[in-house]
Amino acid sequence: MVHQGEVEGSVKLAFQELVSLLERIFVTYGVSPANAKILAENCAACERDGSLSHGMFRIPGYVSSLQSGWVNGAALPVVEDTGGAFIRVDAKNGFAQPALIAARAMLVERARQYGIGLLALRRSHHFSALWPDVEPFADEGLVALSFVNSMACVVPHGGHKAVFGTNPIAFAAPRRDEPPFVFDQASSAIANGDVQIAAREGRMLEPGMGVDRDGHPTRDPKAVLDGGALLPFGGHKGNSIALMVEILGAALTGGFFSGEFDWSEFKGAQTPKTGQLFIVIDPERGGNGVFRDRVSEISALVRESGQDRLPGDRRMQMRARSTAEGIVLSQANHDMLQSYV
Amino acid sequence: MVHQGEVEGSVKLAFQELVSLLERIFVTYGVSPANAKILAENCAACERDGSLSHGMFRIPGYVSSLQSGWVNGAALPVVEDTGGAFIRVDAKNGFAQPALIAARAMLVERARQYGIGLLALRRSHHFSALWPDVEPFADEGLVALSFVNSMACVVPHGGHKAVFGTNPIAFAAPRRDEPPFVFDQASSAIANGDVQIAAREGRMLEPGMGVDRDGHPTRDPKAVLDGGALLPFGGHKGNSIALMVEILGAALTGGFFSGEFDWSEFKGAQTPKTGQLFIVIDPERGGNGVFRDRVSEISALVRESGQDRLPGDRRMQMRARSTAEGIVLSQANHDMLQSYV
Repeated sequence: MVHQGEVEGSVKLAFQELVSLLERIFVTYGVSPANAKILAENCAACERDGSLSHGMFRIPGYVSSLQSGWVNGAALPVVEDTGGAFIRVDAKNGFAQPALIAARAMLVERARQYGIGLLALRRSHHFSALWPDVEPFADEGLVALSFVNSMACVVPHGGHKAVFGTNPIAFAAPRRDEPPFVFDQASSAIANGDVQIAAREGRMLEPGMGVDRDGHPTRDPKAVLDGGALLPFGGHKGNSIALMVEILGAALTGGFFSGEFDWSEFKGAQTPKTGQLFIVIDPERGGNGVFRDRVSEISALVRESGQDRLPGDRRMQMRARSTAEGIVLSQANHDMLQSYV
Repeated sequence: MVHQGEVEGSVKLAFQELVSLLERIFVTYGVSPANAKILAENCAACERDGSLSHGMFRIPGYVSSLQSGWVNGAALPVVEDTGGAFIRVDAKNGFAQPALIAARAMLVERARQYGIGLLALRRSHHFSALWPDVEPFADEGLVALSFVNSMACVVPHGGHKAVFGTNPIAFAAPRRDEPPFVFDQASSAIANGDVQIAAREGRMLEPGMGVDRDGHPTRDPKAVLDGGALLPFGGHKGNSIALMVEILGAALTGGFFSGEFDWSEFKGAQTPKTGQLFIVIDPERGGNGVFRDRVSEISALVRESGQDRLPGDRRMQMRARSTAEGIVLSQANHDMLQSYV
């Protein structure tokens, strides 16, 4: 059921309506029904929560990558239990999210059994936001960290050739009587998707976000996309984090570094084939039974200091609004979706 | 044996000479011999490697804190095995480094047994650099992460009251035929010790590092120290990391937040009484037997991109020089040390 929204030329969909539409698209382009459900819920959640650079914006990239044969939408991930608290998954050249789901129950069980657990994904394509991967652990009372590398588009601090991906880190911790504290941030000064959106909308970037193909600073998103590169956030400190993400996301999992995979034979490929690491902790072993309360306490202290918006707040507001009023899609996005089914 | 150095008014000491001198100082002010050895080696290593804000510079603060009764230099840490891979230590109001040493062998054993291990310290005082805590794990082939909160001196991004400590993160990973990759960085734009050194030397700070007591940006280190505060590095992204460190370093360990401990009754106290978290991973379970090689590969790629200095490089150069030529202390620092024995 499609409703005309208040914004002229927009369309409103309920979450499940959007999920169903996306499932049909994914299946049309070769994703297995089980994987399509996982990807559709993930992508619809991004749009619902206002993570627009990982919502409908990504659908042409998914379709293009699937058509190219670069990623296997029907891959069956293989879980490898190394014993103890260290689990590996070979995503078999499929998307990362189904690989996570395949090992998720075991990871939670091990984290509770041993106090901490690790999940290392390899040969996996991550093409979405990272917060949807970690937030559900916090919903179960666990603390989760994740690191994923991507495609080389970030020059090291002081360097002039792209080595790192945008290399996001996500973190989630449960709170008392409020949604978990969750952040998801690129270790680049800006996300690649946001550069693409700025280019599409003809907006200039803030200073310090990117360089052109000659390695010179530029605010033009098109110059960044046309052979240029992004910069790490926060100078040499963000640079260290970007490098750590390569080590944890790729070296430790057995995946590819961001500049290493070769998709030149796959015209239209857009999904980075790298690796992803999860660390999941049972905080009740160390938190004296008040861990959730303590996370709420420190959140309140930050708000009282004058920081009016904590990471994740805007997402929760958007989620509440989208849930109450429907997810607003532009007519152009809605038409784009319809063109794929 | 004391040598006059090339620099006028300086003194050169071998590492073990400096350690012995520091041990005597620590014992003089009530540190047990076992703990004094740990603290002396830690502090001498900072001076040797050029981490000057955590070297001799800290000795008056150690002495002052010990004299105040705020920290117990003779504390015997109590290790609590929660089973599995999650170990706790009650530092019993002593320094963090002896608490780490007390549980270190068990942590390494568990990390190898289960693939990952966690160590949560609480009621611990951390008054040094963080890299000396993680580097030895990488020397044993393990990957280590550590998070420690400190005393409130950093305003949240967009806020005006200090909530966070400088809240450093340290990371170490072994490499093939070269020293491990190690970084140790405050989540503040600058370390507190470096502000103190700038104030002492009459230098202005770079822009964006601190605010004065009214919450206005300032470059004057004295204004920052006199009721002002530091800013997180990298805007809202560094802010997220600072908040994560409070959660991991304090909420998860059962320690105090950076703004929470009360030392008002202990005149001269300077050591933050908080908590510290370690995550230690056996990378060979996921790295296909080539983890060290892969960390060396990505390090080489970063160097080839034009970044001439990786995190830790300067430390290794200073260490080599200090080891070959002796550790150079200013006459003022040498006199200061002598005044304490």
